[in-house]
Parts: sequence; C-alpha cells; structure tokens
Amino acid sequence: MNIAIVGSGLVGQAWAIVFARGGHRVKMWDGDPSAVGQAARLIEKQVSDLRAAGLIEDAAGLISRISGCASLEEVMSGADYVQESLPERLEMKKEIFARMDALAPPTTILASSTSSIPASAFTEDLAGRARCLIAHPVNPPYLVPVVEICGAPWTDAKVIQQTWDVMEGVGQKPVKIHRELKGFVLNRLQGALLREAFRLVEQGYVDAEGLDVTVREGLGLRWSFMGPFETIDLNAPEGLADYARRFNDMYQTIATEQTSTEPWSEAVIEKLEAQRRSILPKEKLLERRLWRDRRLMALAAHKKSAE
Amino acid sequence: MNIAIVGSGLVGQAWAIVFARGGHRVKMWDGDPSAVGQAARLIEKQVSDLRAAGLIEDAAGLISRISGCASLEEVMSGADYVQESLPERLEMKKEIFARMDALAPPTTILASSTSSIPASAFTEDLAGRARCLIAHPVNPPYLVPVVEICGAPWTDAKVIQQTWDVMEGVGQKPVKIHRELKGFVLNRLQGALLREAFRLVEQGYVDAEGLDVTVREGLGLRWSFMGPFETIDLNAPEGLADYARRFNDMYQTIATEQTSTEPWSEAVIEKLEAQRRSILPKEKLLERRLWRDRRLMALAAHKKSAE
Repeated sequence: MNIAIVGSGLVGQAWAIVFARGGHRVKMWDGDPSAVGQAARLIEKQVSDLRAAGLIEDAAGLISRISGCASLEEVMSGADYVQESLPERLEMKKEIFARMDALAPPTTILASSTSSIPASAFTEDLAGRARCLIAHPVNPPYLVPVVEICGAPWTDAKVIQQTWDVMEGVGQKPVKIHRELKGFVLNRLQGALLREAFRLVEQGYVDAEGLDVTVREGLGLRWSFMGPFETIDLNAPEGLADYARRFNDMYQTIATEQTSTEPWSEAVIEKLEAQRRSILPKEKLLERRLWRDRRLMALAAHKKSAE
Repeated sequence: MNIAIVGSGLVGQAWAIVFARGGHRVKMWDGDPSAVGQAARLIEKQVSDLRAAGLIEDAAGLISRISGCASLEEVMSGADYVQESLPERLEMKKEIFARMDALAPPTTILASSTSSIPASAFTEDLAGRARCLIAHPVNPPYLVPVVEICGAPWTDAKVIQQTWDVMEGVGQKPVKIHRELKGFVLNRLQGALLREAFRLVEQGYVDAEGLDVTVREGLGLRWSFMGPFETIDLNAPEGLADYARRFNDMYQTIATEQTSTEPWSEAVIEKLEAQRRSILPKEKLLERRLWRDRRLMALAAHKKSAE
C-alpha cells in the first residue's frame, strides 16, 4: 500500500515508522521544506531505539521504505491512504483538506490525526467529504497502539472500515467512535479520572505521589492488559451485570461528590506542581521522558510476549 | 515480626502469603474452625503458582512460616501486628475489634482490610482506639501491591507510620489517606472513570470492547508504571503546571458533560452485559480469571525487572 504522510513533525514521523514497520511504502511531506530532512534523521534515531528494544528486526528495510517529497502533489501521487498531522488549527485543516481532496482520486482515504477538531468542522464543503475522517493516535503510536477512528456524519461507513483495516494491518489497535464528541473517548476517560484526582489532592485526602502509587501499583496494572469493563466483568462471580448490580449504589454514592465542573484551581495546580518538583526537579523532566519511553518499549515487548 | 491474620478467607490467605514472603512469622485464625485448614491448602496452591511464575524462590520456607491457630487468644498471643479480614459487616467489625483490643498489649497494631467501613465506625469506644486503622489491600495483594492506609480521627500518627513501614518492608506499596472518605482513593478513581465509560456506551459513542481497547492499548499502558500525575507531568514541556494550564479549558468543557449522578441504568447494564457475553461466554469467566492472574504475575515480574 502507498501511504502519504502530510506534516512531518513528531506525530507525522511516528506515523511514518508505524506504516513502514507494517510493510507499506511511505512518502512524507511538510509545508516547511527543511522539515522533511530533519524528520528523516529523527526517524532513524527512533528506529534505532526500537531495534535496540527488540521491537523491530529489520531497521534498514523499514527506513528504506520511507522517502521524502518536495511538494504536496508529489506526496499525494499514487497514495492509497493519507495521514495528515499538521498543527491543531482549524484554518490549516480546512486548507489542507481542500487541497488534498482536489488532488486525490476518489478512492484515496484522507485521515487527520487531530485530537481536538471534529472532521465535520473541516470537511463539510468538500466534494470528497465521504472519504474524510479522523484517525487519532496517542503519541508515540509505535509504542502506544490505540487509534481512535471517528468520521463526520457524512463519512462513508466503508471508509471507516477500511481505515480500521489499515490500522489493524499495521499492528495498531483501532477503536470505532460511532458519533463525534469532544475529546473522543481516551481524553474523556482521562479527564474524568484526573478531575477526581485533582479534587482528592485539593481537599487534602491524598498527596500526588500517593495517588500515583494507587494507580501504578493498583488500578493501572489490570487496565494495562484488560480494560475497565473486562476488569469488572471478572470481579464478580456472574460477570459484569452482577458487578454492576452489586456496586451500583456504592458508586452512585461516590458520584454525588464527584460532580464539580470547576476548572482546576490555581491553588491545586501549584500544590501539585510543588509536590511533583520535589520528586522530580524541572531539569530532570527530559531525562525522565526518555525513561518513560524506554519503559513503554519494555512494556510493549512484555505485552507482546504475554499474549 | 509476629503477624496475626484474623479471618482466613481469600483476603486473609493472600495477606498470610504477603507477610510470610516478607520473612515474618504468620499465625492465622478464623471463626469457622474448618476454615484455617482449608486456607492452608489454598495458600500452598497459590505459593506454588507464584514459584512457577518466578516471583518467589523459597516456597517451602515461606509456607513453613505460616501456622494455624484454634482460638483468637492463641493467634493474638505475641502478635506485633494484626490484619483483620472478616466479612464487610459493621457488627462483626465492632465485635472482633473489641475482642482484639481487650486481648492485645497496647503496642500491637490492629489493622482492618475493610474496603467500605471507616475505622471510626467500629473503633470509637475502644480503650486502644489510637492503634486501630484501615490497611485496605487490592485482591490479591501478593500481585497487586497497593495498600490504602487510613486512620480514624483518633488514630495515632505513629501507628499510621509504623503500618506504612510494615507494608513497605514486605514489598507492598502503601499510600497514606489523610482523612476518612467513602471508597478511599482507588475506588473513587475507578468510579469516576467507570461512570464516564458507562455513559459513553449508553449514549452510543463507543462499544464495550472499543472502550476497553482505548484503555488497555492506550491510557492503561502509562498508568501501569507511572500514575496519572506523573503522566501529565511528562506530557508538557515544563511539567504538570504547564500541562494543567494548557488543558484546563478542554477538560473543563468535557467535565460539564460528565456530571451525571444517576445510577447505572438497567438498559446500559444489559447492553454491556450482552456485549461482554458475546466476547466471553459466562461459562468461560473462571478460565479468564485464571488468565488474568497469570497476566498479573507476568506483569509483576516484568515491572520488577524493568525498575
């Protein structure tokens, strides 16, 4: 398959790795002429890390399937699937999708990586709007495989299925979002948990580190290989409905205290920031991000071997 | 150290393994005279599984440190730390804590495994109420190390710290909860996420499996070795406060749609149950629970090796 990467920043680079790792030919373009060369160098670095972690075998073969292009016309030429990863600005999405729709034959799928703009906001007036949709990754997608797939109301169901198949074919874990919604599913779940987490610290029940331990040594263990529904399905003798009926009252009682829609206050932000900085000084953030990526690689290798 | 296990059901057995694995002498008692013998057999099975997973080395030594007792007097005799794991009934807690408080010298710590009853509800009238507290595990604690430690308003801060040290000393991951609250921290975080999860399925945005994939192939990966606060601390260039100020508006907008306190409806419970049963027939629940425990063991071994 021929894949076009439009926008070669961090997200575009990671997508190039995912598709090339999956055996596809990948062409890459960016509005900034110097960006593609820089992206190629960063991709080599990332692929070398993946190789070192044992997550890919043929690094040279992967790299050889990725090439840069000097124009949008060139990158779109012959593409079966286009993954757009420009900055999160509505006007840029409108402009690039209009140009891509004019250049691509009707069977080419046009997908956007946006995490915040629904497809209906920038595809409504396009002749080919039925082949446009969102395929939202989590960074970096070669380590965090979930992809949220969400069409506009006019996106063809076949296009959604084809995108799902493309993603599954390269080892990603696609999820169909049936209707447009703010933040898709992942960030809504994260937001619900974070809101309660901020509140518990604000009201003095627990500290930042205690809360993190509760998740990383408790809740997060199960959630890293089951989801929340499978977790509760296995936590009552007769399965999910049994669990829901046993614990509905308890969770409802808790919920009445979890309804705040206030923004996170400056006071709690400062409290949490101070607690995090006492654990991790600001000058060590970058080093710790590299640690995180090594841990994600080791976890990916572990999950692969445990399946 | 001498540990007394009061109540030898599933939770008490698992605690016996944790303390014996940590090198302590463990005595175990149950109100049902046949229960202790049965517990000993189940402990041998669990220890053998842990041995097979490479999580313990000296299985025979571990087992040899656990013994059964025929009376509460016998199990309490010489105990430095008592872990009570009776059923979640307030009257039972009141009665057993009164008996334990009368039997134990003032320096013995009396901890309850309860997940739902605050210590203030059953220790207020005891002479030794300052040495009583909650040490709430997640089942099974030898695989899921978090322990929520929460005193009543009259619990001595030294007792809380000593309990924390006992837990850390046997390889558990203690968390201090500074004030009593319903559901402690873990179940409140789980409840906040589950509420949004039920809502998203109820309103047709995503299916049960899609939601589970979003967590187990996305959110849950980071949360299994970092917590939610460390996750966002590393997700903005300048750390947590930087992240909070960038995304406060987005999460607040989402939050206005996440304020329902309705119980989970029978309709969504049935929908989710049907989806789970199409993935996992009811007769395979038990087999899948064994799979879950093997995965938890493999994950524990992985986290140990990755640290």
